[in-house]
Amino acid sequence: MNINTNYLHLQESYLFSTIAKKVNEYQAANPDKRIICLGIGDVTRPLVPAVVNAMQAAVLEMGDAKSFRGYGDEQGYAFLRQAICGYYAGKGVALREDEIFVSDGAKSDLGNILDIFAPDNTVLIPDPVYPVYVDTNIMAGRKIVYMNGNVSNEFLPLPDTSKKADIIYLCSPNNPTGAVYSREQLKLWVDYALEHGAVILFDSAYEIFVQDETLPTSIYQIEGARLCAIEFCSLSKTAGFTGTRCGYTIVPHELVRGGAALQKLWLRRQTTKFNGVPYIVQRGAEAVFSEEGLAQVKGNITYYLENAAIIADTLERLGIWFTGGKNSPYLWLKCPENMPSWEFFDLLLEQANVVGTPGTGFGSNGEGFFRLTAFGERENVIEAMQRIRGFC
Amino acid sequence: MNINTNYLHLQESYLFSTIAKKVNEYQAANPDKRIICLGIGDVTRPLVPAVVNAMQAAVLEMGDAKSFRGYGDEQGYAFLRQAICGYYAGKGVALREDEIFVSDGAKSDLGNILDIFAPDNTVLIPDPVYPVYVDTNIMAGRKIVYMNGNVSNEFLPLPDTSKKADIIYLCSPNNPTGAVYSREQLKLWVDYALEHGAVILFDSAYEIFVQDETLPTSIYQIEGARLCAIEFCSLSKTAGFTGTRCGYTIVPHELVRGGAALQKLWLRRQTTKFNGVPYIVQRGAEAVFSEEGLAQVKGNITYYLENAAIIADTLERLGIWFTGGKNSPYLWLKCPENMPSWEFFDLLLEQANVVGTPGTGFGSNGEGFFRLTAFGERENVIEAMQRIRGFC
Repeated sequence: MNINTNYLHLQESYLFSTIAKKVNEYQAANPDKRIICLGIGDVTRPLVPAVVNAMQAAVLEMGDAKSFRGYGDEQGYAFLRQAICGYYAGKGVALREDEIFVSDGAKSDLGNILDIFAPDNTVLIPDPVYPVYVDTNIMAGRKIVYMNGNVSNEFLPLPDTSKKADIIYLCSPNNPTGAVYSREQLKLWVDYALEHGAVILFDSAYEIFVQDETLPTSIYQIEGARLCAIEFCSLSKTAGFTGTRCGYTIVPHELVRGGAALQKLWLRRQTTKFNGVPYIVQRGAEAVFSEEGLAQVKGNITYYLENAAIIADTLERLGIWFTGGKNSPYLWLKCPENMPSWEFFDLLLEQANVVGTPGTGFGSNGEGFFRLTAFGERENVIEAMQRIRGFC
Repeated sequence: MNINTNYLHLQESYLFSTIAKKVNEYQAANPDKRIICLGIGDVTRPLVPAVVNAMQAAVLEMGDAKSFRGYGDEQGYAFLRQAICGYYAGKGVALREDEIFVSDGAKSDLGNILDIFAPDNTVLIPDPVYPVYVDTNIMAGRKIVYMNGNVSNEFLPLPDTSKKADIIYLCSPNNPTGAVYSREQLKLWVDYALEHGAVILFDSAYEIFVQDETLPTSIYQIEGARLCAIEFCSLSKTAGFTGTRCGYTIVPHELVRGGAALQKLWLRRQTTKFNGVPYIVQRGAEAVFSEEGLAQVKGNITYYLENAAIIADTLERLGIWFTGGKNSPYLWLKCPENMPSWEFFDLLLEQANVVGTPGTGFGSNGEGFFRLTAFGERENVIEAMQRIRGFC
C-alpha cells in the first residue's frame, strides 16, 4: 500500500490562522477596541428573495410524493443549464446546453478537472494567486512554472513565449489583486494557447463585478477561445452562494487534445465521480438568472462595489498604489513606505484596528502588498477608512 | 499537452440505455400494456416532514442578514458531525467528530478518496459490483483484481490469501446482490487487511435496511477495523436524499499508511478540492438523525422492506434461488432454467410486462442473474408479483 506521496510536498498555509491569532491577541490585550475586518473573502449579504422563494417551493416539492425528485443528471437539470445559456447569450456568447456542467462550486471543479489531464503536463500559474491552483497540481505531481504579477504589469502577466506550458490558469477579475484583463490582453493568451496546444483554465468567479463594458466577462468573448479554454464560474460571489454551493464549468465541443474531446472526458469524470447538485439548490440557482433574480443580486453587487469605491477613494487620496476596486470586490495595494506585508498588517491592526490580508499569503510576488475586500458592512467600511486616513 | 489516457480504457456502459430502448420499443408496439418497473435503483418516497421543516427553516435563515451563513467548514458543520457521532454511538461505535467528513454523497467520496493513494496500488473488487468502483480505478490506471461472487459463496466472497491487494472494496448490504456479510465474515476481511497492510473501503450506503441485529451495520463494529478501514455512508437510501445529496466518510485517526495518517491526507484533499455541503442540506441531514426524523425515515424503510418481502415470497414460492430482500432493498435472483440475463429480461418484459436489471450489467459473474428492487409503489409490486406467478 503506497500513499500519494505528492501530498507530503504540500506546504501548510498558516495565513488565516496567523491572522486570527494576531487579531485575538490584540483584542485580548485591548478589550475596549472595536476591530473592523476588511480581510474577509466571503459575502455578507443574505440570499435574495427570488432565490429564497424558489428554494422554499423546491423544499415543499421534495416533501410531496407527486413532485419528489430522486437522482438528477450529474451535469445538472436542463432548466438550470438553459438559464445559464441565456445568461451567456446576454454576453454575446452562444453555448450549447451539453457544454455546461453544473457543480457544487468552482473550487471543486478547478481541482477535479485535473483528473482528465496527464500528470506530466507543465502548469503555468500567476503569482500572486488563489492558492488552490498550486496545491491541486502539487497533489498530482505536476511541474509548475510561475508568471510574475507586479507593479509594472499591473498584476496582469502576459505570455512569455520562452516559457512552454500545457495548462494555464487565468483568473479575471483576479483574486487576490482585483485586476481585470482587457480583451486585447486575453487575446494574447488565447493566441499563445492555440500556438502551444495548451489549455487555459479560466476562472471567472468574479465576472459579475465587471462594470466597464469594454472588459471581457467570459473568455469565450475572445476569438479562438472555444478551441483552447475551459471556463469556471460560480454563484458564490454572484449571488451569495458561498454557503449554498452552486457553480458551473463550460467545456466547448471544439476543445480537443490528444484526439479526445475534453467535453466527453469531463462528462465521463462527472458521471463517474459526482452525482449532481441538490435539486433545491438548482432551483435557487435558476432563480438567480431570472429577470427578478438578476436585478436583486445586482443590487447586492452594487452595494459591494460602493464599498470598494469608498476604499479606492481613500487609497487614492493617500497616494497609495493599488489595483482592483472598480470591477472587483478586491483591492490590492502596495504597502506604504515599502513595508513588508506583515509589518503593514501589524501597523494597521494596532493603529487603526483594521484587519486585512497580507499579500505574501498569495505567493512570493505578494510580499510588500496587501488585500482589502469590499464584502463588509457599509458603516464598517466608512469607519475603517476614516481611521486609516487618520493614522496615515 | 497530454490527456489522461487511462480514460480511453474505460468501457461505455449501455446497460440502462439498452433497457430504456427495449422498454420503449415494447411499449410502442404494445400501447395498451401497462409496464411495471422493478429495476429502478432510486427511491420514490418523498423527504420526511422533519427534513422538510428543517430545510424550510434553513432557507429562511439564509434569506436574513442576521442568520445568513457563508462558507462553512469543508468537513461539515459541527452540528451534523455530532448528530452522526450520536447515530454511530447507537451502533456501539465511538467516533471522534474530526473523523467524520460530510460530503455530497458516497459516490463522490468513493471516487475522490483514491486521490490520496498512489496509482501503483493493486485494487481488489468483488464481481458483480457497483460499476463506479471499477471505473474510478481504471481512470487512475490502477491494477484491478477481482474476487468472485457466486451461488456457492452466496455472493459474499471471502479473502483469498493467494491474492495480494492494497485497496479492497466491500459493500454490505450489497448493491446489486442484497447480500450482507456477517460479523465473522467481515472479521476475516479485517484480519486480511491488517496482515497485508491493505485498506478496506467499506460502502455502507444500505446499512439502515439491516433488520437482523446479529448483522453488522458498520465495519467499525469489527475489532481492528479502525486500523484498516474507511467507511462511506450516505443519506441517499437512508432518507431519500438521492436528489438532495448528502453523505459522509469516516477516516479513523489510527489508520496510518506509509507513515501518514489518512485522516490528515483526506482532510487536506477535502479542504483543497471541496467547499462543503449546502448549509440548508446539512440542516436537513441533521434532522434525519433526530428522534422524530429517524422514526419517520424508518417508516419509509419499512415500506420498502415490505415490498422486498412480497417479492421474496413470490421467488420462494416459485423455487427461484436469490440473495437479499431481507436486510436490503435489492433481490438478486438466478434466472429460471439457466437463462442468460438478457433473455430473462426480454421474457419478463414480454410475458409479465415487468422490467428488472440484467445481472450481467454488474460484471461477468452477473451473467445468468437478475436484480429486482423494492423501491417501487406497493400496488405495483403486488401486481408485478401476480403477473410473474401467472407466467412462471
